[in-house]
Amino acid sequence: MKVDVLTLFPEMMDGVFRSSILGKAQEKGIVSLNAVNFRDYSGNKHGTVDDTPYGGGGGMVLKPDPIFAAVEDLLSQSSAAPRVILMCPQGETFTQQKAEELSSEEHLIFICGHYEGYDERIREHLVTDELSIGDYVLTGGELPAMVAIDSVVRLLPGVLGNESSAITDSFSTGLLEYPHYTRPAEFRGFKVPDILLSGHHANIEVWRREQALKRTLQRRPDMLDKAVLTDQDFKIIQRLKQEQQEDGS
Amino acid sequence: MKVDVLTLFPEMMDGVFRSSILGKAQEKGIVSLNAVNFRDYSGNKHGTVDDTPYGGGGGMVLKPDPIFAAVEDLLSQSSAAPRVILMCPQGETFTQQKAEELSSEEHLIFICGHYEGYDERIREHLVTDELSIGDYVLTGGELPAMVAIDSVVRLLPGVLGNESSAITDSFSTGLLEYPHYTRPAEFRGFKVPDILLSGHHANIEVWRREQALKRTLQRRPDMLDKAVLTDQDFKIIQRLKQEQQEDGS
Repeated sequence: MKVDVLTLFPEMMDGVFRSSILGKAQEKGIVSLNAVNFRDYSGNKHGTVDDTPYGGGGGMVLKPDPIFAAVEDLLSQSSAAPRVILMCPQGETFTQQKAEELSSEEHLIFICGHYEGYDERIREHLVTDELSIGDYVLTGGELPAMVAIDSVVRLLPGVLGNESSAITDSFSTGLLEYPHYTRPAEFRGFKVPDILLSGHHANIEVWRREQALKRTLQRRPDMLDKAVLTDQDFKIIQRLKQEQQEDGS
Repeated sequence: MKVDVLTLFPEMMDGVFRSSILGKAQEKGIVSLNAVNFRDYSGNKHGTVDDTPYGGGGGMVLKPDPIFAAVEDLLSQSSAAPRVILMCPQGETFTQQKAEELSSEEHLIFICGHYEGYDERIREHLVTDELSIGDYVLTGGELPAMVAIDSVVRLLPGVLGNESSAITDSFSTGLLEYPHYTRPAEFRGFKVPDILLSGHHANIEVWRREQALKRTLQRRPDMLDKAVLTDQDFKIIQRLKQEQQEDGS
């Protein structure tokens, strides 16, 4: 997979692109990550990429010309038909499902604004997707692009080795994770639950499933609507809800 | 404000902490950002910070001892009572409201796991908050911590200068932004709407409000429930809904 990121702050990407999974995925030749400063496509000697908004008001707006020119230069080098993704608060909310969808593409181009608005013609006539990573305001699209890239690249075949595991895949199983414990068995008087030391694997599985259901019910009941649940799961949820009601009364 | 980030990959933070708003906020002395490698607190010569899970299963679990030791060392240097924030998929969903809440704190400590689970005793007996930036799986907590830090620090008094504006503050106004346009007035045949070139500021304000309502209704109708709306806004929404229905029939 090829990933290009258009940004005015390419140096923001360095530490993340070189470290950990993204660094290894590049070393293995599975992905190529490339930060492009679209100021290089300004077409003027001052490197101007923004201007004041038509109709007045505060702030600056990113001009269409440099971003069109940068994207088209990247498109001309690409054999695939890339997804051109604008990171912005107005975008579709990014989810694990979207990460899986993007992981099947050959070429992704991310456009990151910084402080500023985008000229609407970029949205209307250049990009294929607008994505938002959540309902909070950030300084620019760089961190959101890195978040999307990390979540997509870790799904590519060959990227995750033994260092990873299903342990982190809450949003793939549809439930929040059950509690994890490791040594020491007692830390400052806080003990690991007896069942995990019992060696009864079947009982441990039952306990873990109930804990995952309990945590999801307490913290993210909205996730239960989409999770794949067994009849046994529904019985457990029913009991947990009753216990909650009794605790509350 | 003082911000400490516990991580096994402190080099991931470099580019982001040095650039743009976060770099400037540090230069101005408004915030101090500090990445701490909690492997230095392993207490053993091999630097081991994780171990296999009790009860079996794949993956590794971060041990309680190094993270307790690292946090307590930071607490001992702090006059404030810091928020100790675990970045994890099981956490409360991070929002602009949470960013505003955290921006009033003197000291934040973020704990970032990587690949792995956390020993449950860290959740139960050390942290004050568990936060998730969205429903997608990432390699570690580093990018989520940087996202939270960026959103919090930009709210601190004196951080944002003229380079910023309300233009990016979709989630503060409660509506998605209206479309922005800048020069050229015509780009490849795509024209700026006439009204923005008209100079009639009152009409422009009406148009912009309607466009913001329209975009929010189309893309994020859930946001309308929480937005502060006037009687005029409700009338516009009613009309837009009727137009949608007519288009759909």
